[in-house]
Amino acid sequence: MKPNKTCGNCSNNFFKKNLARWTDTINTHLTNILKKLSCPTELKKSVDYSLMAGGKRIRPILCLAWAEMLGLEKNKILNFACGLEFIHTYSLIHDDLPSMDNDDLRRGKPTNHKVFGEAMAILAGDALLTQSFELMANNPIKPNYILEAILQVSIAAGPQGMVGGQVLDLSLENQRQTSLSQIQEMHRLKTGALLEVACVSGAILAQEVGASKTDIKNASIYGRNIGLAFQIVDDILDVIGDENVLGKPVGSDIRQGKSTYPSLVGLEESYNLAQKIIQNALESLQNYKGNTKIFLEDLANYIIERAH
Amino acid sequence: MKPNKTCGNCSNNFFKKNLARWTDTINTHLTNILKKLSCPTELKKSVDYSLMAGGKRIRPILCLAWAEMLGLEKNKILNFACGLEFIHTYSLIHDDLPSMDNDDLRRGKPTNHKVFGEAMAILAGDALLTQSFELMANNPIKPNYILEAILQVSIAAGPQGMVGGQVLDLSLENQRQTSLSQIQEMHRLKTGALLEVACVSGAILAQEVGASKTDIKNASIYGRNIGLAFQIVDDILDVIGDENVLGKPVGSDIRQGKSTYPSLVGLEESYNLAQKIIQNALESLQNYKGNTKIFLEDLANYIIERAH
Repeated sequence: MKPNKTCGNCSNNFFKKNLARWTDTINTHLTNILKKLSCPTELKKSVDYSLMAGGKRIRPILCLAWAEMLGLEKNKILNFACGLEFIHTYSLIHDDLPSMDNDDLRRGKPTNHKVFGEAMAILAGDALLTQSFELMANNPIKPNYILEAILQVSIAAGPQGMVGGQVLDLSLENQRQTSLSQIQEMHRLKTGALLEVACVSGAILAQEVGASKTDIKNASIYGRNIGLAFQIVDDILDVIGDENVLGKPVGSDIRQGKSTYPSLVGLEESYNLAQKIIQNALESLQNYKGNTKIFLEDLANYIIERAH
Repeated sequence: MKPNKTCGNCSNNFFKKNLARWTDTINTHLTNILKKLSCPTELKKSVDYSLMAGGKRIRPILCLAWAEMLGLEKNKILNFACGLEFIHTYSLIHDDLPSMDNDDLRRGKPTNHKVFGEAMAILAGDALLTQSFELMANNPIKPNYILEAILQVSIAAGPQGMVGGQVLDLSLENQRQTSLSQIQEMHRLKTGALLEVACVSGAILAQEVGASKTDIKNASIYGRNIGLAFQIVDDILDVIGDENVLGKPVGSDIRQGKSTYPSLVGLEESYNLAQKIIQNALESLQNYKGNTKIFLEDLANYIIERAH
């Protein structure tokens, strides 16, 4: 089953099957978590609706993969990894709200507030965010490592990170001219911080089996560059993507007058930039080996391939 | 400065000065936390506006007082205690939103969304909730105790606790007839769970200096009863209170057709019930001694005295 590294297609198919396996692992655990959740029925439905709407589970997968590559048995931190998906899902629900981005569709389905109303959507987000910390606090790993990971996640997801990024995003929308550095800062906070901390927290938790500060640093470099490339490709796909594949309308950035990488530096240069950034991510993996290392390499390359 | 226990007025004045000192401690630390917060200016203003709007800081005080009574130096857990106030403040901002309770005033001032708009109010709440866990994760206490406390707080504040309580509250508003047990369940989750876990987390953290499971149990009994009494008195004050003292309109429960303790069992019986419940809280303190024990007794009695 080792991929033929000279054949792009085989390698790609191998990766996709592998990715689907990781996604299944997360989905199974998310389903178990939801089964055990005891709360008002309508709230549970609303949480379930958005959590199980078919995301790729990139954040928990990054956390698990980094931990596994560094030697940690991934079943030990499934709760923690799923906590990251809870945070991601809450942020999508709140971002879609009428007072924010006012989106009607998410992954091809009506957004949470369209189905459950605004109050329940806000509360489902609050519930997911709060429960994410319950999940992260509850893993059979030494408490000091869990605490260190929780601290990093809360910083990355909070006012200095993701929430701050959403504030910047809203303020940039009301601005006539936006510079590339403003866009970069916004993306770094809004989507980059959580992707980075997903890798970093995996490495922090892998200290349980001897991971070092250098490993944590490498996870940080990988995660930061993945996040940046991901956003550039997202911007590219908003110009050249297929609505049916993306599950959301293309061209919305242009219609909303948003500054994006393509609108600021052009499609070609955006693509080159993304490729350079993925190269930085790949370099952070050079000291590791094994199947999970190959998976993380493939994942980095896959991000670029989406833009083809 | 020891209070004359035979004179209610002296004792009350002594308590109020004492309470003000505890509140000052929390306010000073909250100010320090905000000073260090680096995030977009408008977000910081919005967070600051609600956090420093003059709350009594009951939750952090309960946490500190329980910890101190059990022998823990309270300066060690100031971050943790302030995290509880962050959670309380986020819940007030979100509860006030137009799609929720649609309140224009809070503590005599325009609500957060009235000043900063709905999007920023939602994000300020999200920021406070997320940062609360950063604060709780960061205290010079053994990681296993911090983690245990964080776990309990996240359960109490999440879908099985406070968020679930707000969902019940909204659903009861749309219901013609409400039973006392439904109201009790709603209050237990919406306000009771966080008050209880404030005491419980103080006792959990005091395991650092030898506090026992029995101490944690006592903190739980005290907190649960304080919370219940607090809500009954709140309902009473909505009938007989002074608008200027409360900083919010009285009679709003009746106008909104909400079922309350007075509307369901009458004023007199509500008052008797609150007194009985406070007695339960006081009994949980009987094995302790010292000034902080007296302070916690006074605090319990003070809740009832508000209703006079």
